[in-house]
Amino acid sequence: MRISKEHDVRRNEILDKAAGLFEERGYNNTTVNDILREVNIAKGTFYYYFKSKEEVLDAIIDRYLEIALEMAEAVKNRAELSPAEKLLQVIIGLRMGSPKSEVIQELHKPENALMHQKSIAGIVMGLTPIMKDIVQEGIEAGDFATPFPEQTIQIMLAAAFTLTDESMFSFSQEGQQRLIQALFYSLETLLGAKKGRFTSGLQELTERM
Amino acid sequence: MRISKEHDVRRNEILDKAAGLFEERGYNNTTVNDILREVNIAKGTFYYYFKSKEEVLDAIIDRYLEIALEMAEAVKNRAELSPAEKLLQVIIGLRMGSPKSEVIQELHKPENALMHQKSIAGIVMGLTPIMKDIVQEGIEAGDFATPFPEQTIQIMLAAAFTLTDESMFSFSQEGQQRLIQALFYSLETLLGAKKGRFTSGLQELTERM
Repeated sequence: MRISKEHDVRRNEILDKAAGLFEERGYNNTTVNDILREVNIAKGTFYYYFKSKEEVLDAIIDRYLEIALEMAEAVKNRAELSPAEKLLQVIIGLRMGSPKSEVIQELHKPENALMHQKSIAGIVMGLTPIMKDIVQEGIEAGDFATPFPEQTIQIMLAAAFTLTDESMFSFSQEGQQRLIQALFYSLETLLGAKKGRFTSGLQELTERM
Repeated sequence: MRISKEHDVRRNEILDKAAGLFEERGYNNTTVNDILREVNIAKGTFYYYFKSKEEVLDAIIDRYLEIALEMAEAVKNRAELSPAEKLLQVIIGLRMGSPKSEVIQELHKPENALMHQKSIAGIVMGLTPIMKDIVQEGIEAGDFATPFPEQTIQIMLAAAFTLTDESMFSFSQEGQQRLIQALFYSLETLLGAKKGRFTSGLQELTERM
């Protein structure tokens, strides 16, 4: 028990320090030796946890995915929220959690395109079952109506993560705002929700931000 | 005039032969020297047209984009088709044109993730103005109703290209079919088209295939 806890603590320490270095000097300019020095461990210890620097970045991304999924799961279980409020909360949580982080910025560099692609697929597939449950709850409550609860979530997530990705698309600020409005409008329309259920929440949201 | 034509012919010959080699032995296993031998040109001639092997792949992708855009433009101008039929034709044309091609398969290899990402952004941004014009035509004819003609196209294209990309997502055959249905249903719903306008066309389409 104690050993397993120590294992996780050490592993997380390596990930934290590595994430710090990636942010500070960039992923490509950081070597495994830099990480060893920062964490103050021997090469053998590092390779006990990770096969390579790539695996470290992969694990950092996985940790972000886990955090996002835990957040979504927690929102899903908040009984005081309506299904539409839950979906909005998850979306807000994703926006807060990811785009500012240094590691996600790292993903947007050309040399990390593969990991970037993997992370989009990972977050879409990870969030789908949780958000589908929320949609299902909304259908049962009579708030939503769609023959494709699961696919609607996948379509909206894939479109949102791809189009708001500044390493792939660069819209003007006005274009970006219009796109966000269109995404919420599309979610509302595809879920068969009452008009304004998501788009008015968006207005509130942007006013508060 | 003659020189410029020769220039294009030679350039296209290099692209054709290179595409053949990429298909035959893979992009990473093909060298610039292999291309020189296949086209029977000197190194200097190659570098007059292209800076690197990467630039050759880039140009091959650009050529596919051009073909796709010309196809979409031609469909847009076919006066005998309704706006909904035009959108369906463009979508069918994209499916015919791209996924079987050897170069698109090349894009799905891990080492070509960046070019892959660029090609998704390129095709979405390239098709948007043409398909938006068709949507606009449908709005004026009273067939469609949406406050977001441009963004609806972008959302649907980004979702479709991302989710049907087998290097990112792997659905079961049943899951894939359900996703395709959901994509057409979503297009129909977001464009405010008459129920069945796209989904019944889809049925016909799959029956013919």
